Amino acid sequence: MDIKLRIEEALEEAVSAGETPSAPAGLSAAIRYAVFPAGHRIRPRIALGVARACGDDRPGLSAAAAASIELLHCASLVHDDLPAFDDASTRRGKPSVHRAFGEPLAVLTGDALIVMAFESLARQAADSPDRLATLIATLGRAVGTPSGICAGQAWECESNVDLSAYQRAKTGALFAGAAAAGAGAAGHNDPAWLEFGVGLGEAYQVADDICDLTADPEQIGKPTGQDQAHARPNAAQTLGIDGAKKWMAELVQRTIDSIPDCPGRDGLRSMVLAEGGKILPKGLVRAA
Amino acid sequence: MDIKLRIEEALEEAVSAGETPSAPAGLSAAIRYAVFPAGHRIRPRIALGVARACGDDRPGLSAAAAASIELLHCASLVHDDLPAFDDASTRRGKPSVHRAFGEPLAVLTGDALIVMAFESLARQAADSPDRLATLIATLGRAVGTPSGICAGQAWECESNVDLSAYQRAKTGALFAGAAAAGAGAAGHNDPAWLEFGVGLGEAYQVADDICDLTADPEQIGKPTGQDQAHARPNAAQTLGIDGAKKWMAELVQRTIDSIPDCPGRDGLRSMVLAEGGKILPKGLVRAA
Repeated sequence: MDIKLRIEEALEEAVSAGETPSAPAGLSAAIRYAVFPAGHRIRPRIALGVARACGDDRPGLSAAAAASIELLHCASLVHDDLPAFDDASTRRGKPSVHRAFGEPLAVLTGDALIVMAFESLARQAADSPDRLATLIATLGRAVGTPSGICAGQAWECESNVDLSAYQRAKTGALFAGAAAAGAGAAGHNDPAWLEFGVGLGEAYQVADDICDLTADPEQIGKPTGQDQAHARPNAAQTLGIDGAKKWMAELVQRTIDSIPDCPGRDGLRSMVLAEGGKILPKGLVRAA
Repeated sequence: MDIKLRIEEALEEAVSAGETPSAPAGLSAAIRYAVFPAGHRIRPRIALGVARACGDDRPGLSAAAAASIELLHCASLVHDDLPAFDDASTRRGKPSVHRAFGEPLAVLTGDALIVMAFESLARQAADSPDRLATLIATLGRAVGTPSGICAGQAWECESNVDLSAYQRAKTGALFAGAAAAGAGAAGHNDPAWLEFGVGLGEAYQVADDICDLTADPEQIGKPTGQDQAHARPNAAQTLGIDGAKKWMAELVQRTIDSIPDCPGRDGLRSMVLAEGGKILPKGLVRAA
């Protein structure tokens, strides 16, 4: 089955499990709104791309792991958009969750999505108990503290910021987790997959920096100029647009070179190259 | 080892795992502040009491499950105290997390505690992979949606409230989860443990309603009169203090009668009776 379809089906299964008649309707609606329709789904695509490269012998588990990574990503977007952080009014081309449903439901939507990520993974692991503990450790490291996306966001509250720890945690951790979760679901636990994911995350961060500086907010569905507004480091600001594009291409190449030995190395290499073109604003894709 | 000590040791292990030198200091401090010093720890006491009644053959796993329940409870307190919900200024006798550390770190502390709960449980399950998936399902049902504490809190955002679903989810779910997690960690998966936990949760809710109406805020470490301020149902308001105390005693007795067949039935019965006396304001304990 097509990767895109597998991701949407696994997400649909996870979200609909919470939508019983006895659930409060507002929370159910807000959760669905936060997850659908699809964004780039770049992190779960990486998870399934890596799982496939590693043989993907438990496709139900790898799809659940990919969906969990995306649910955790959606949770972080909902909370990062809150007034206490970015106070973003739009996300994925529509009002942010707290604008559409109010702040209380936005806080609860993020919380419920985190829980749902672990719960739906465990549901699919009934016939793979030997892989579950490692997968949960992988998700935890990607999103919690000391080095996951919670920690990354918390660095923005510090007066003395460890820039490298900040960047690795804020973006790199979830990419590393996506790659490692895809590999882990297929029974491969080489730590080199973490580094592969970190490399992809760095490339993605540069692309995102370029978008924040040059993209049309309508086209990418969220406000731009946020890094300058929140005094966050931005590679395109530091290196210039052309410098940032070159740096991104170099990071993609390095990442491809770092793919650990696995049955589907060539397919994964092609996928990474194709993904690289998808995340830049349209006018910049050719040159990237 | 004493139950209290086992809980504090397991919590210390979970919290300190996040406190590496590369973690953002503010988040580490806020997490520790939210978890220590101990509150009643009533939910993890129930988990370990039930585990013991069921034989407690994996004490590392049951302690981790108990700690996870408490971490999830602490997460819910931190988020429920936020300005978007109760805007509580104090909790456990000191400023609430958002008053002490600011709102951004309070949101992240709750998020990180939820992740930590699943992560630390998985860490202790390395030699019990067969029990992990069920334990995670138990935690998920207790805190997520459709019927966990996230859903319970979300009922407060609805205009038409299903009162029974609200009360079961808001308080009962985590008590049910505590009992079922303790049993599950000891390899017992009788659904009757969920009902036992729900019964305890109902008794606790009545005690909490009495506290909200009669206790000294200094003594219980949090503001009182919150139910009236937020137009929430309160059994002591409806039944009067004496009526509520009688109702609570009846609930405790019903719960004791519902203890499923297990090796340590008598010990658990005594524990429930003892706990009943601990959660009421001091002046009311004798009569309860």
